[in-house]
Amino acid sequence: MALSNDKLAAYPHYKTFSSQDAAVFANDHSELFGEHSQLHTVEFGDGNLNLVFRVKNQFGTSLIVKQALPYARCVGESWPLTLDRARIEAEVLLQHRQQVPDHTVEVLYHDPSKAAMVLEDLGDHQILRQALIAGKQLPLLADHLALYLSHTAFFSSDFVLDGPSKKAQVARFLNPELCLITEDLFFTDPFCNHERNTFDAALQPFVRGLWFDEDVKAEVASLKASFLSKPQALLHGDVHAGSIFVRHDSTKLIDAEFGFYGPIGFDVGSFIGNLLLNYFSVEGQLNDSHAAHAQQAYLRQQLTRFEVCFNQHWRDLMRSHTKDAALQSERYQQQFLQQVWHDALGFAGCELIRRIVGLAHVADMDTIANKALKNQCELRALECGRRLILQHRQLASLSPVLQLLT
Amino acid sequence: MALSNDKLAAYPHYKTFSSQDAAVFANDHSELFGEHSQLHTVEFGDGNLNLVFRVKNQFGTSLIVKQALPYARCVGESWPLTLDRARIEAEVLLQHRQQVPDHTVEVLYHDPSKAAMVLEDLGDHQILRQALIAGKQLPLLADHLALYLSHTAFFSSDFVLDGPSKKAQVARFLNPELCLITEDLFFTDPFCNHERNTFDAALQPFVRGLWFDEDVKAEVASLKASFLSKPQALLHGDVHAGSIFVRHDSTKLIDAEFGFYGPIGFDVGSFIGNLLLNYFSVEGQLNDSHAAHAQQAYLRQQLTRFEVCFNQHWRDLMRSHTKDAALQSERYQQQFLQQVWHDALGFAGCELIRRIVGLAHVADMDTIANKALKNQCELRALECGRRLILQHRQLASLSPVLQLLT
Repeated sequence: MALSNDKLAAYPHYKTFSSQDAAVFANDHSELFGEHSQLHTVEFGDGNLNLVFRVKNQFGTSLIVKQALPYARCVGESWPLTLDRARIEAEVLLQHRQQVPDHTVEVLYHDPSKAAMVLEDLGDHQILRQALIAGKQLPLLADHLALYLSHTAFFSSDFVLDGPSKKAQVARFLNPELCLITEDLFFTDPFCNHERNTFDAALQPFVRGLWFDEDVKAEVASLKASFLSKPQALLHGDVHAGSIFVRHDSTKLIDAEFGFYGPIGFDVGSFIGNLLLNYFSVEGQLNDSHAAHAQQAYLRQQLTRFEVCFNQHWRDLMRSHTKDAALQSERYQQQFLQQVWHDALGFAGCELIRRIVGLAHVADMDTIANKALKNQCELRALECGRRLILQHRQLASLSPVLQLLT
Repeated sequence: MALSNDKLAAYPHYKTFSSQDAAVFANDHSELFGEHSQLHTVEFGDGNLNLVFRVKNQFGTSLIVKQALPYARCVGESWPLTLDRARIEAEVLLQHRQQVPDHTVEVLYHDPSKAAMVLEDLGDHQILRQALIAGKQLPLLADHLALYLSHTAFFSSDFVLDGPSKKAQVARFLNPELCLITEDLFFTDPFCNHERNTFDAALQPFVRGLWFDEDVKAEVASLKASFLSKPQALLHGDVHAGSIFVRHDSTKLIDAEFGFYGPIGFDVGSFIGNLLLNYFSVEGQLNDSHAAHAQQAYLRQQLTRFEVCFNQHWRDLMRSHTKDAALQSERYQQQFLQQVWHDALGFAGCELIRRIVGLAHVADMDTIANKALKNQCELRALECGRRLILQHRQLASLSPVLQLLT
């Protein structure tokens, strides 16, 4: 393939990996395979943004090689996209793993000049979105996400880092190109008549209403401004149900290429928004109404549990690990946590709307076979999103939202 | 002098200027003096942080050469201080001058490797603080500051710059070392029993009360968090009455070495705080009570005028120059401006307190000869500062503050 992106000049050692290249890269930078391994390699990424290879030896030992492509295929066309995102992804995962080793995929090696990394193989896990769509109930999901999101955010925040250390981190993870994608797709497109939007005609009346709702637009503007100018912590940046690998007893975050310093509520709200998207899709996905009710009860229970656990972790961390003397005020800490929830509920509302109106949809909704039923599910999600956006600054917690769902 | 700072290794071309060096530097990088100039040079900085030379030829044409020293002398000891602040100062002034040429000192040339710059000579101006202490009334001060602060902030903000451009600017002006000074001296030291604090024993009861006031500490924590994590615009960073040169009809900002991306309310609040400091010092400075009342009436009028002009500029700019489509919501814009004022009044409160309790005092108070009168003035300023800090999130404007002053 011809690589025409000018920015490639900064990557003289970059070439897109063949399966053979990936096997050599994995073998050179890991001792897992041993000397006489016969390696077998399969590329299984969707090829839109990255190459993803599974490299396995004859004894079944396997590793993942992930390499960033210098473009993104989207809406049928390709646009250049920085290879620096591979560095960012690897460095975010390494930092997050220092805080929460159990819930962050392990990066065994990474080479920014090749935009490539060797990762542990989570082949015994599955993508959370697929698990949820299949009606699986993961009892520890909320506990694990609460631990991951609270600890990764707290230990990269002003509570712990002094000004100069924090500023160095902000600069290291500016991530302008990938942030711009979120700025556009999450906050701008879905709230105006943009050509990148894609939604069923049946939703048109609701969506048009949204575009001309001045209250919604004011709140979304304020949320976008927070995304742009509130570098509170090193976020994962893309905590949707496709970035989480799960097993019955295990939860691992992957795909941190959107990582940057942003508002803590963004990651929290993205996770909540994705559970809510699945919640509203359940009646279209599960024909058995008993199973549907059970799944929705499970999701409500997990959302409640997530809030309780996140708050517990956050309060404990603030109380016992705040280094900045001026931020040790207990009253301030309570206000801070409250503000995180205001933000999170607003961002969750945007996630609900942008996944139905905007460019990037979720399989939870898009695989509902019955179109009328699908649109019904989507409309309920949109209405919930609208309420979250309008009321996020008044909402002190998730509970009133969950009450609306019962 | 022995330059022991390790960071000097990054500045192989740096040596502290002699008067002769300053004259050569000015002559080499300006065409003002002409070929047969006989240059006369005087160093007149206070020598704490920078060298400041006036270079003048036999016809009276003059320029200023300013060079950063690699240390700061403070509390009797010296600590190393980055020379990069000279680059930041020059670049902030150049950017601000693009927006507001009339009220930003002109940088004719700067060389970051020498930490030095050539500036226009404002010898026909005087420092605002000296003018105010002398009871001078500058009729256009508020208009000029409102223009400067609104335009410099707006055109460096998310309203105008797209995400990637803004992020590049944030990284260019991180300014970690000088920000850390503000983080400590402005937000931390004055609100606890810190050895850097310095204040008269008569203030002890009030100050101790402050240190144990949990409400004050919570609000100051929130203001410090904004200073740390709210990169809204490229600030001057040190808008006190010593950074403003004035003539009856002219106002020029100088000394932007604390420039960084921070909350817009910080510059606004610093300016307001400095006018209030002078206000409370007037009765100790001017023996004639008629003159004192006139001066206080002038300051109240200027504060009112500043608010009106700043708001007018800001609303006009948001309405006509906002590039980000999502931020064009009029309701959001109103909320944004309101938030700037909440922040500004809180920061003004901190400025009042830190200039009386903390390390860096102001001559307005410190030159009051009668100690009892001085402490009386200081206590009134401290009480106003405390109120501003406690109420800043409820205060919609300066007017209720001004009413308390009459």
